Amino acid sequence: MKIHDISMTISERMTMYKNRAEKSPRFAVERRGRVQESRLDLHLHSGTHIDAPLHMLPEGGSIDSYPLERFIAPSRVLAFPDARQIGAAELKGKEIRKGEFVLLKTRNSESEAFDFDFVYLDSSGAEYLKEIGVAGVGIDSLGIERDQEGHPTHEILLSARIPILEGVRLKDVEEGTYLLVALPLKIAGAEASPVRAVLIDEISG
Amino acid sequence: MKIHDISMTISERMTMYKNRAEKSPRFAVERRGRVQESRLDLHLHSGTHIDAPLHMLPEGGSIDSYPLERFIAPSRVLAFPDARQIGAAELKGKEIRKGEFVLLKTRNSESEAFDFDFVYLDSSGAEYLKEIGVAGVGIDSLGIERDQEGHPTHEILLSARIPILEGVRLKDVEEGTYLLVALPLKIAGAEASPVRAVLIDEISG
Repeated sequence: MKIHDISMTISERMTMYKNRAEKSPRFAVERRGRVQESRLDLHLHSGTHIDAPLHMLPEGGSIDSYPLERFIAPSRVLAFPDARQIGAAELKGKEIRKGEFVLLKTRNSESEAFDFDFVYLDSSGAEYLKEIGVAGVGIDSLGIERDQEGHPTHEILLSARIPILEGVRLKDVEEGTYLLVALPLKIAGAEASPVRAVLIDEISG
Repeated sequence: MKIHDISMTISERMTMYKNRAEKSPRFAVERRGRVQESRLDLHLHSGTHIDAPLHMLPEGGSIDSYPLERFIAPSRVLAFPDARQIGAAELKGKEIRKGEFVLLKTRNSESEAFDFDFVYLDSSGAEYLKEIGVAGVGIDSLGIERDQEGHPTHEILLSARIPILEGVRLKDVEEGTYLLVALPLKIAGAEASPVRAVLIDEISG
């Protein structure tokens, strides 16, 4: 079993969305003799994380309302090395299947620094993936969209209860089929959760 | 695929070790228009979580140093409905195999409340499991031991780099063989991590 770790490391120095340092994680480490215990104060949209409908829809479901089958799912990594944004036109060449958790690999994966011009999924792409009935959508940036009034990419996916996985690191992963494991923490009523996300090579294609 | 969720829910009202309310999670929820974003300030030993060697060994490895294969592993749920503590004598009847992630189901699973007399793994049990070479050890209480000077159960397991999974909920899970998935967050230098832990029914025995 080959496991590809596609998670960002959580630390006080990790890259935050739009470099907003005030949202960074904060640690409080306590030592008593040989025992160490810590608290971690974490913005739920830090690093590799899943958005639930409640993030953008006040009446939407929270992260603990998703069936876990969504997060142990067949996954497709799709590479768009030259795209500046990903819409229906870009996705149409890829033969995406219903039930797949789609991961979008772009030039975002080339650097750990925050790129204000990050490649994103536009609303036409979100509509296209919703129509197919994908299990979820992931992307290699800390946001799945930018510069779209009203956040339509989030609205389209989350109103269809399609989870969004942001902040995956795909630099070392080839386009192809994998098993994705990316279980959210069971946080009561939360609109998101950090996750440890991995891809496992499937034994048969 | 049948998934058994064996995780505790993270909330401000969740049961904490020894009912220490000052260690409870704290949420800070921010709403701007339709957008909700939260911070979660969490003691890393809350609810269902994994201890790394650094928790008890100042020179021990941190949670991000474990190979992930440990946490996507064949698992055995072993039931001890009448035990007050679990030692080598109790474990010898169970034919435990090297490489299994052992989960101890006790009367702790019957209630969500904290029991100061919780059933625990004693140092003879820890030695026995270390000798077999298990992949990890889990238990259905917020601690794996109590009332043992110097925390020998932790020391024995963690010095052998055997991860400890505390706070699993096994009430609805039968004794038997499963695939465990319990990936820690990738937290730089931390001595523990909360996890979403699940058991998956294996297709073949």
